[in-house]
Amino acid sequence: MVNAGDMNGSGNLMDFLDEPFPDVGTYEDFHTIDWLREKSRDTDRHRKITSKSKESIWEFIKSLLDAWSGWVVMLLIGLMAGTLAGVIDLAVDWMTDLKEGVCLSAFWYSHEQCCWTSSETTFNDRDKCPQWQKWSELLVGQSEGASAYILNYFLYIMWALCFAFLAVSLVRVFAPYACGSGIPEIKTILSGFIIRGYLGKWTLLIKTVTLVLVVSSGLSLGKEGPLVHVACCCGNFFSSLFSKYSKNEGKRREVLSAAAAAGVSVAFGAPIGGVLFSLEEVSYYFPLKTLWRSFFAALVAAFTLRSINPFGNSRLVLFYVEYHTPWYMAELFPFILLGVFGGLWGTLFIRCNIAWCRRRKTTRLGKYPVLEVIVITAITAIIAYPNPYTRRSTSELISELFNDCGALESSQLCDYINDPNMTRPVDDIPDRPAGPGVYTAMWQLALALVFKIVITIFTFGMKIPSGLFIPSMAVGAIAGRMVGIGVEQLAYHHHDWIIFRNWCRPGADCVTPGLYAMVGAAACLGGVTRMTVSLVVIMFELTGGLEYIVPLMAAAVTSKWVADAFGKEGIYEAHIHLNGYPFLDVKDEFTHRTLATDVMRPRRGEAPLSVLTQDSMTVEDVETLIKETDYNGFPVVVSKDSERLIGFAQRRELILAIKNARQRQDGVVSNSIVYFTEDPPELPPNSPHPLKLRRILNLSPFTVTDHTPMETVVDIFRKLGLRQCLVTRSGRLLGIITKKDVLRHMAQMANQDPESIMFN
Amino acid sequence: MVNAGDMNGSGNLMDFLDEPFPDVGTYEDFHTIDWLREKSRDTDRHRKITSKSKESIWEFIKSLLDAWSGWVVMLLIGLMAGTLAGVIDLAVDWMTDLKEGVCLSAFWYSHEQCCWTSSETTFNDRDKCPQWQKWSELLVGQSEGASAYILNYFLYIMWALCFAFLAVSLVRVFAPYACGSGIPEIKTILSGFIIRGYLGKWTLLIKTVTLVLVVSSGLSLGKEGPLVHVACCCGNFFSSLFSKYSKNEGKRREVLSAAAAAGVSVAFGAPIGGVLFSLEEVSYYFPLKTLWRSFFAALVAAFTLRSINPFGNSRLVLFYVEYHTPWYMAELFPFILLGVFGGLWGTLFIRCNIAWCRRRKTTRLGKYPVLEVIVITAITAIIAYPNPYTRRSTSELISELFNDCGALESSQLCDYINDPNMTRPVDDIPDRPAGPGVYTAMWQLALALVFKIVITIFTFGMKIPSGLFIPSMAVGAIAGRMVGIGVEQLAYHHHDWIIFRNWCRPGADCVTPGLYAMVGAAACLGGVTRMTVSLVVIMFELTGGLEYIVPLMAAAVTSKWVADAFGKEGIYEAHIHLNGYPFLDVKDEFTHRTLATDVMRPRRGEAPLSVLTQDSMTVEDVETLIKETDYNGFPVVVSKDSERLIGFAQRRELILAIKNARQRQDGVVSNSIVYFTEDPPELPPNSPHPLKLRRILNLSPFTVTDHTPMETVVDIFRKLGLRQCLVTRSGRLLGIITKKDVLRHMAQMANQDPESIMFN
Repeated sequence: MVNAGDMNGSGNLMDFLDEPFPDVGTYEDFHTIDWLREKSRDTDRHRKITSKSKESIWEFIKSLLDAWSGWVVMLLIGLMAGTLAGVIDLAVDWMTDLKEGVCLSAFWYSHEQCCWTSSETTFNDRDKCPQWQKWSELLVGQSEGASAYILNYFLYIMWALCFAFLAVSLVRVFAPYACGSGIPEIKTILSGFIIRGYLGKWTLLIKTVTLVLVVSSGLSLGKEGPLVHVACCCGNFFSSLFSKYSKNEGKRREVLSAAAAAGVSVAFGAPIGGVLFSLEEVSYYFPLKTLWRSFFAALVAAFTLRSINPFGNSRLVLFYVEYHTPWYMAELFPFILLGVFGGLWGTLFIRCNIAWCRRRKTTRLGKYPVLEVIVITAITAIIAYPNPYTRRSTSELISELFNDCGALESSQLCDYINDPNMTRPVDDIPDRPAGPGVYTAMWQLALALVFKIVITIFTFGMKIPSGLFIPSMAVGAIAGRMVGIGVEQLAYHHHDWIIFRNWCRPGADCVTPGLYAMVGAAACLGGVTRMTVSLVVIMFELTGGLEYIVPLMAAAVTSKWVADAFGKEGIYEAHIHLNGYPFLDVKDEFTHRTLATDVMRPRRGEAPLSVLTQDSMTVEDVETLIKETDYNGFPVVVSKDSERLIGFAQRRELILAIKNARQRQDGVVSNSIVYFTEDPPELPPNSPHPLKLRRILNLSPFTVTDHTPMETVVDIFRKLGLRQCLVTRSGRLLGIITKKDVLRHMAQMANQDPESIMFN
Repeated sequence: MVNAGDMNGSGNLMDFLDEPFPDVGTYEDFHTIDWLREKSRDTDRHRKITSKSKESIWEFIKSLLDAWSGWVVMLLIGLMAGTLAGVIDLAVDWMTDLKEGVCLSAFWYSHEQCCWTSSETTFNDRDKCPQWQKWSELLVGQSEGASAYILNYFLYIMWALCFAFLAVSLVRVFAPYACGSGIPEIKTILSGFIIRGYLGKWTLLIKTVTLVLVVSSGLSLGKEGPLVHVACCCGNFFSSLFSKYSKNEGKRREVLSAAAAAGVSVAFGAPIGGVLFSLEEVSYYFPLKTLWRSFFAALVAAFTLRSINPFGNSRLVLFYVEYHTPWYMAELFPFILLGVFGGLWGTLFIRCNIAWCRRRKTTRLGKYPVLEVIVITAITAIIAYPNPYTRRSTSELISELFNDCGALESSQLCDYINDPNMTRPVDDIPDRPAGPGVYTAMWQLALALVFKIVITIFTFGMKIPSGLFIPSMAVGAIAGRMVGIGVEQLAYHHHDWIIFRNWCRPGADCVTPGLYAMVGAAACLGGVTRMTVSLVVIMFELTGGLEYIVPLMAAAVTSKWVADAFGKEGIYEAHIHLNGYPFLDVKDEFTHRTLATDVMRPRRGEAPLSVLTQDSMTVEDVETLIKETDYNGFPVVVSKDSERLIGFAQRRELILAIKNARQRQDGVVSNSIVYFTEDPPELPPNSPHPLKLRRILNLSPFTVTDHTPMETVVDIFRKLGLRQCLVTRSGRLLGIITKKDVLRHMAQMANQDPESIMFN
């Protein structure tokens, strides 16, 4: 049977303009909102303001302010999201370096800032300056040697543990909702679910602080996903300042969609990509008005971040790149291979991560979240330190992998053997044979790849803020760079092979390993999240050239196809299912041939549907019905015999109305008749005073016939955002279908456990 | 009353799997499709293929091909749209130059190609080479002097008239649908309307050819809008090759949405902007799957065009620019002024153009389309030739106006007085005082602006292909460049003013007039079309820098607000209304407090609704009903007394079923009873054979109660794409609301003539 929460349906809006009871129009925690109802309420509000605005100048100004509040909220969200992202970037930069050493001239400087301000830095050794001291130098005066190494190693682990412990404790004590990436929950919230406190001020504060801590601790996680959550918290905060948004759950979700766009915009420095991400991946109801405002919020956020300039290069992200050489058709083959790798990694990651998270949920493991974080952090730090590619922050690693080897590059990855006879412009260096540094780097990258793959599976889902974009991109970038170097060396040493002969003559700069890293990153990210357009656009905004869209697109398409072949769910959908949220995915196609009659309650053999009659029940009858059931509403019919539907009454409003009447209205007693009709008949003089409840009756409940294909019903639920729908046959009420029933039925049809849908 | 065409509702899908009659599932011309039904039919098709694919390997391969056909269609559309755009660009280039002269070395070369291939061209005088001869040189051997000028002038006008006459004749004789920009009609078609032949092969061919002719004739129109129509014709052509798309009007529209994106992609060299344009402006039903495929089609089209390289600079459009200097906050003021100008121009243009088009429609003027084109072409050519800024093609004009004045620029607009003591890098030239050329240019530009504004109003809407993007952008670019030069000179001569002091020291390159031209173009385009996100993204893709998004956005927002203050409709919506197409705009908010009962038919005092009863009407009764009415379908009720709704039968299917039964089934005569029930009762032995029609009955017609607010009804019609909806009260059938009723009601509420909605 349906239970409370399923049926808090659309109120009769015409009668509710002056909201007679205080709590009308709010929803309970972990319940679904009714989109149609929210929309109607907003239209009513709008009508009221418009008609009032003609009364006086003050009201007219108020109506203008109301019309502008949407843009104001967007501006505020953009400013705050950009500022927070900048602060997080700066703090992470500093704290990541703190694990290795400290700046003597000013302890709040990161390594780079410290040496940047130092006058003794030469261009070739930008990373070395006397002001920056490793811990071993500061404490025992040694910077080289085994004991210094061990001391640094030990302090690195200690700092990491310290950060991680602080983070997990803060999350546990102050804001349990601050953990994870937040994107699955935000998707669910945007689809119309209520999770109180998930976007609250505490969550915002704690998530921001702990995000800095966990990213600095060196765990295999990113800040990009959580930044979306942080931006949505900002959105929720600012929308609570304007009654237009705070009192309407539908309108509030428009703001949150825009906030999500702003979050991605600052996370990747990609305003257009952010809007498309919000549209494609996160949002549920995305009207065109919101598109335009989201774009505005995303731009404001991006420009705020740029004026903070956290990386000192007036770029929004660390891993912005510009390539100088084109790609060739023959390279599509390795790009597609990277796509296959990305798809396989996505499948592997989702399967393993979900299995591990399920284990955490169901076994005793879940009882020790702090210990789990400590153990994983310790393992990560111990393994990561010896390898230079895992010791540094993951963003820096990605940035180095994406980079093209210029003439001035001092990195190990650019240790090629130069031809002394060749003089060429700085940016157009021909392919060269790899030097020993590159071979070392290859080994270290291979180890880093295995490590990242394994540790990320265990890291994502712990009780700390953790994003998936950066680790996924790192896995892909490592694999891509390795493939890229391989192809480059192959082309250099075998430039007479038929596939290379056309485009890779000796002395030409034909293979860009950095581009392979970027393609690999896109493929892996696509495999895990199943993003498509937004992924390509984000990557396009990172490279800034239309030129490289085709490789990115080839990899993204391949990766999605390969991953989809093993399972349709992306990581976010998988986590939504794991948590049993009532999320009706727009992307799932329902193709079964069931009818409404197969899904509606009551089923055959179950007790009949609890209904109210329009003019034959007493107050006591109604109270008994309310007491004995926990449904959120009751259909009202002409009489038990005819079963012709006339409307729908909500439990909450029934209770309030009866309570109200008993207190205030004289003569309403337990055996008063309850009338839902327009004009109650004249009663004999000594009969009790009737209770007229027509004004709480929703006269336009949504109905379908019992023969309606479920496909259509699912479509209606999705597009109109219904909570429930009544089922009739030739005008007779037969049953009811709630959103939960629909989700359960869909789970059943997909051979999943229908009981996995937990909320209403 | 509702008439035929309103009610061709959703068939009973369960019974129609094997489509018993040939014509079932098609729609008549100028009728609206039922989206829910199309979707169900596609799901059925898909189910059939999936179940068959398990039977044999051949069927499995066929199912794979079917799954891939979507991508194949996209690839083909991209290739064809890109190729056509390239061919059009090349042909326009050649024919525009043909008006002035001819290339002696090869007559099919345009002026630029001719001199490019010539060895005698010097860098400073790229436009002069002996191979290229003006007509006067060729015919009378003179290139200078009054008589040569007059000869060239005369031939210019003759060529223009010749091109225009050819174009309008071709359109009139072969493809009347090829005229106009096509975007209003495509919007209507995508929203579910049928206009047979509008996207046909003839239209494609004639539109492509005449587009070249009219653009070359020098009329004030562009090829960008018509290119969307051309791309959609390609989409329609390729979708007719695959039964998945050709037999399903809903699926076909998905392809057309993607084709529209490809069209904009090649028109502006902006693949992402194209997809957003299709999403924001053109499409009605745009699932995420289509987003991804549209992106693919747009990319393929862009790369095809680039490999054709029509402009010889590996850019997709003529007016691609790169700016070298940033903009300053104080410049936002002129940018916003340009936005205001754009909004005013948009309003002026829409009002005047619609008034003129209405006049053409209602007076005798409309009877002489050929003469009209000839007259307008003659006027355009006569006025345009003496002014160098109107003589050349509008794209070239825009390109020059957008351009920043580099050191090597020889154009009149870049005739600044150079400081001989100053040596600076090529791209970073300080602001300089304007020379005489600039002053001349300002006068000529002012005249060109007035001319363009007036002539465009009369040009758009003639019976030739005509796009609006380019003329609108030209108006804005001229205004913008003039403002830009003004600000530049102001800043140069008054650099001690407080607003300039901070950012415009002497010797600094602080004002870029080209950027003002671009901002002005965006503002004017926004004012006319009311595009928002897609406009900014298209412009962003033209400049290639995130830097200039803020000015563009400021102008676009201002322009939209200003224009919206005078009237909400963009030019495309205005033309849709003018033509009376049944287009239910997603962007219009319906905020009135009417109820379903106010809109449904029959109204009070009208004849009762024509209904069928489930078991008491004879074949003759039904035939009489069909003959006497022209409704597209009839509700079926239990009995005339109870009026309880059981389903909906379509006129077309009723006629076919009765005809069929009379021919094939023995014993069905005029007084046979028609049964819509599941099990007809046993009849007395000598009564005529009954006719069972349950299988043509749609058992799940869409219903709402009479108290449903129209706001909700409009939402349902929009989101579910219904054709009609039945109105009930307590299970009794009261009336019917069709899409046309909804549109009429909306027109009435907006104080427009409800009879302006002409089609069903």
